[in-house]
Amino acid sequence: MKIRLILLLLVCFSSISFAKITTRFPSSFDDNHLPSDLASKGKELLSYETHYYTQILDHFNYNPQSYQTFQQRYLLNDKYWGGSKKNAPIFVYTGNEGNIEWFTQNTGFMFEIAPHFNALLVFIEHRFYGKSIPYGKNKETAYSNKSTLGYLSSTQALADYATLIIDLKNNLTATDSPVVVFGGSYGGMLAAWFRLKYPHVTIGALASSAPILNFGNITSPYSFNNIITQDFKGESENCYKVIKGIWKQIEDTAKTTGGLEKLRKSFRICKNYISQGSLQNWLSTAFVYTAMTDYPTPSNFLNPLPPYPVKEMCKAIDDPKTGNDMFEKVYGAANIYYNYTGNATCFNLNDHSDRHGLGGWTWQACTEMVMPTDGNNNESIFPVSEWDYNERARFCQSNFGIKPRPDWVTTEFGGNNIERVLKKFGSNIIFFNGLKDPWSGGGVLKDISKSVVAIIAKEGAHHVDLRWSSKEDPEWLRQVR
Amino acid sequence: MKIRLILLLLVCFSSISFAKITTRFPSSFDDNHLPSDLASKGKELLSYETHYYTQILDHFNYNPQSYQTFQQRYLLNDKYWGGSKKNAPIFVYTGNEGNIEWFTQNTGFMFEIAPHFNALLVFIEHRFYGKSIPYGKNKETAYSNKSTLGYLSSTQALADYATLIIDLKNNLTATDSPVVVFGGSYGGMLAAWFRLKYPHVTIGALASSAPILNFGNITSPYSFNNIITQDFKGESENCYKVIKGIWKQIEDTAKTTGGLEKLRKSFRICKNYISQGSLQNWLSTAFVYTAMTDYPTPSNFLNPLPPYPVKEMCKAIDDPKTGNDMFEKVYGAANIYYNYTGNATCFNLNDHSDRHGLGGWTWQACTEMVMPTDGNNNESIFPVSEWDYNERARFCQSNFGIKPRPDWVTTEFGGNNIERVLKKFGSNIIFFNGLKDPWSGGGVLKDISKSVVAIIAKEGAHHVDLRWSSKEDPEWLRQVR
Repeated sequence: MKIRLILLLLVCFSSISFAKITTRFPSSFDDNHLPSDLASKGKELLSYETHYYTQILDHFNYNPQSYQTFQQRYLLNDKYWGGSKKNAPIFVYTGNEGNIEWFTQNTGFMFEIAPHFNALLVFIEHRFYGKSIPYGKNKETAYSNKSTLGYLSSTQALADYATLIIDLKNNLTATDSPVVVFGGSYGGMLAAWFRLKYPHVTIGALASSAPILNFGNITSPYSFNNIITQDFKGESENCYKVIKGIWKQIEDTAKTTGGLEKLRKSFRICKNYISQGSLQNWLSTAFVYTAMTDYPTPSNFLNPLPPYPVKEMCKAIDDPKTGNDMFEKVYGAANIYYNYTGNATCFNLNDHSDRHGLGGWTWQACTEMVMPTDGNNNESIFPVSEWDYNERARFCQSNFGIKPRPDWVTTEFGGNNIERVLKKFGSNIIFFNGLKDPWSGGGVLKDISKSVVAIIAKEGAHHVDLRWSSKEDPEWLRQVR
Repeated sequence: MKIRLILLLLVCFSSISFAKITTRFPSSFDDNHLPSDLASKGKELLSYETHYYTQILDHFNYNPQSYQTFQQRYLLNDKYWGGSKKNAPIFVYTGNEGNIEWFTQNTGFMFEIAPHFNALLVFIEHRFYGKSIPYGKNKETAYSNKSTLGYLSSTQALADYATLIIDLKNNLTATDSPVVVFGGSYGGMLAAWFRLKYPHVTIGALASSAPILNFGNITSPYSFNNIITQDFKGESENCYKVIKGIWKQIEDTAKTTGGLEKLRKSFRICKNYISQGSLQNWLSTAFVYTAMTDYPTPSNFLNPLPPYPVKEMCKAIDDPKTGNDMFEKVYGAANIYYNYTGNATCFNLNDHSDRHGLGGWTWQACTEMVMPTDGNNNESIFPVSEWDYNERARFCQSNFGIKPRPDWVTTEFGGNNIERVLKKFGSNIIFFNGLKDPWSGGGVLKDISKSVVAIIAKEGAHHVDLRWSSKEDPEWLRQVR
């Protein structure tokens, strides 16, 4: 059996087999759900003005189409800024694949440190996301085909940031104010790359949970799921075994008469739709994202989560009350992720809505962001499977009529032998990784030079360092910050 | 009076006023004219195989058009290579705006040092030049309009080099062989930028006569002509004064009845065509390019030149035999540049042929290579004039229907505060400049760090260090090498 992880909401599910495409970054945070004790702090500190910059569509060629412009959104907070005369610094968040307001709201770290540095805060939205949509902000047009989507790329985004920052500094007559870039996840990759490619625009980068090495064959394609496996195994051996065993049980049950209906009831799936694959996918999504966001304090990804949610999931699985009912145990775990508030009455597997506007990532995964993460070896908590580039290529062909360029990221940004390359080149980059984060396997985990350094949190999850601080934060997290 | 320097052969001359566009790099060397005593050395060492690589048309977007490919030419010499098992180095010339064979033939330095390093030599042709023409090698199509020419840009060229080098190393199973890039003039700019942008592909760069600071307002627009002024003034004050005075004399004479005919005869211009502007342009071209290529040994630019041609020009001007006949004196100087072989019977001002295939530079000067070099202050050997961006913009609008992006090069590659930016960023770049070269004003003339260094030759001209060595080379040149 081979389970296919589809973590792309845009994928058209088939009821038999699932296209294994790419794992999304957990990039969307819901502003209505600032964690309990942080809410007041967030509400006090979180403020920004919205601005727009007229951005060029293509920086790298001179076709007539490339001269088209669009309005790029950026958010500004100058409450703490020491001003241009004092050459006070500018902290820039290099936006990732979603609405910039979410990232802003979720990057409390920048708001919390700004007063200490008298820093101006700028959060720039990535082209094709949020409100920074080319073609007259018409998302339908922008996302309609490969000709329009063609301009959604990381190099264009970096050039956008350079152009916007230079212009902003000119307007503020702050050309001598140093710029430091921050980013988490894909935004962290952009921050690191921005420092490497535009050292004349930024003096340093904090790249949090940035898997810049999860390309080509630099990082093992088993790494991602191995870390998830370890996250659950670390909580309890039984928890790991139950989850590892569930896939075959689902498969076997699905084959029996009335089996799908049994599964539907066991997992409280709504009546409208169920299939073996969609159920397996729904479950694996819960495990993957919970592992990524295994934060020590309450959090919000697509859904609200308690502190240490992996531990909570394993508690549910290990609960003696559920005896030998594996479905009930795993349902209990999934319920932590999908229904922590307890409001859900049933779960809709047919809901492929993209309410956080992350759809562009499918395109990016089909062009340059070919990150091999889907391998599962014998020990994996998920069924054994191999990373298969051709599967990706077929999906991209059928979905967009496009051929990925899997070698582009390593060609443009490097990654192979990064220690040798950056030992005497580049400076002022901090790579943060939490080792519980499945993406950490593709991160920079060792100091490369005196100023290209790695900060590691053994207990940390995906860009935990950028979150709002909390009284409940454990000591290791305080130290990281 | 304002003389307009048009050094672009493609410019449509008007008989009244001249569009002042841009100064070309002296990039084309004629393979039939290897300097006397070098010819045998060159013939012995100069050998290469021609290869083609299937290159993508646009690296930075994913439009269907960007997936088009073209055949990119590169020349290979593996005579001296120590091989991949020994990780022997690879020396790559990053081709500039012309036929790669010319650059190869003119870059004797690489052939001469290759045996000492057991280096593989690779000379890559720049897209849209030589035989590396997109659209099925159909130059007429490729150069027909802004939609096709749009893909001619420096960033695309750098990405071409990265892609080709990585592929070549894979094919040679030489992924661990260090790559060093070399380039002169625009090719030197590309070499420096390549090290900065692709440190994972090259460990170091020799950027010879690379005016990477001749953008924006980093370098004074008077610098270029000030250096030419100094070159002639340094030979003789009288020489400088005669040339400085000639422009007005030509203007005054042109206004008189029969004046143009008098000028035509004085300067041995063919009967087909003369105008005041075309004559002034023809003369200034001679002074500009002679200053650029004021080499200590015989050379070839568009025409063969003697050693120290500026000195020769001034000798002609200072020659007492011509008494007070300023036209005859300046004609004598021009004759050094245009007719050193003595074969010409008259000079054709109407010859706008582009026999070295450099026409693409006009496009590059109209898009990103906006290098302000045309200012002339009171001391200038040329008539006083101001650098005028709007004039460039108008020319580009009327010639290509395109708007330049004058800020792009500094946005993408930096240049402002380069010492501060690169002091602790980047490594392994040698900037060579000869101070007689008018482009040296836009070069990096000071060491920036321990391994980002400047080599200066007070007596040197445009990338003199890359030329074939000669028994006649002066001591300073031997030391530079």
